Amino acid sequence: MTIYGDSQSGNCYKVQLLCALLDLSYKWIDVDILAGDTKQADFLAKNPNGKIPLLLLENGQTLSESNAIINYLAAGTALLPTDNFLLAKVQQWQFFEQYSHEPYIAVARFIAKYLGLPADRQAEYDAKQAGGHKALQVMEQQLSQTPYLVGEQLTTADISLYAYTHVADEGGFSLQQYPAILAWLDRIQQHAHYIAMA
Amino acid sequence: MTIYGDSQSGNCYKVQLLCALLDLSYKWIDVDILAGDTKQADFLAKNPNGKIPLLLLENGQTLSESNAIINYLAAGTALLPTDNFLLAKVQQWQFFEQYSHEPYIAVARFIAKYLGLPADRQAEYDAKQAGGHKALQVMEQQLSQTPYLVGEQLTTADISLYAYTHVADEGGFSLQQYPAILAWLDRIQQHAHYIAMA
Repeated sequence: MTIYGDSQSGNCYKVQLLCALLDLSYKWIDVDILAGDTKQADFLAKNPNGKIPLLLLENGQTLSESNAIINYLAAGTALLPTDNFLLAKVQQWQFFEQYSHEPYIAVARFIAKYLGLPADRQAEYDAKQAGGHKALQVMEQQLSQTPYLVGEQLTTADISLYAYTHVADEGGFSLQQYPAILAWLDRIQQHAHYIAMA
Repeated sequence: MTIYGDSQSGNCYKVQLLCALLDLSYKWIDVDILAGDTKQADFLAKNPNGKIPLLLLENGQTLSESNAIINYLAAGTALLPTDNFLLAKVQQWQFFEQYSHEPYIAVARFIAKYLGLPADRQAEYDAKQAGGHKALQVMEQQLSQTPYLVGEQLTTADISLYAYTHVADEGGFSLQQYPAILAWLDRIQQHAHYIAMA
């Protein structure tokens, strides 16, 4: 299989980390968003929504959306529960990630790290802080009760939320006020085959 | 089971429509977002993220995030594929919905319909139009090729995207330029047990 992505993107790192934890091999193709790679016709033919990561299977089928990709790759492994309620809880956290976490924490990081915090994005950057901390508080509350987001075991929900949480400081979010999140980050980093973000 | 929601919310309507299609019975509890119901302590105890819809099971377990809820309720029925790739495709469209569709189309509708398009939100409303049309174009491309988003059969992915697409005009999006979407809306409305949004 082939993965199209950018190693600095947390959404792409989710797929890299999942593959590392499961010891899955793949071909990696670098895509440069800022250079407009995702707006080229050949890329749009693979993903009309023009986003990375993108998974291309040997049979030519494609799959986009980072959380859908990692759930697909984790099916049948210990990283994805088979119990229907726990599986729904994994998805609950992943939809939370895409709607209530990523648009604040990842976008603030993008503005600061990729764009260099230009003056005309300062107000938007500032406006992301409250929403990001609200998301972190929701995570902190859960992780004060269970070692992983869905309970006792590492699941793809943790990988989804680990990606941008562990670099939240690059978006201006200090994690020092979230001890349960810090312990959880460390717990994930102790897993066999863990790899750091590029 | 009990569903906490607001009948004017597309995210809540997803759950109502899914339950109607599957003939599932439930207790409905009205939640008024604008009155601050989701910020009350008793609601936050059920969903720390303070959002609706929320599913409360008989055993006291809770599940939030509309798309996670409908996938949970549809498991084992014809509305949710069992093939791993098709199941991932359902999720791909649902994550697309929450990241690339809802934040434009549903938020524009919220500003216009719930808030009455106040002057201080006009610029934000206008800025939502381009992103909303981009999402509609992605849907139009798929629905020009297959009757439903994931292929030949109605799935929860269609329910997820139907919710705000069929009322996109309330957010300023005319669907007249999207014939495949219009045919798909009609196709869904022809299903047995279909119910309209309140």
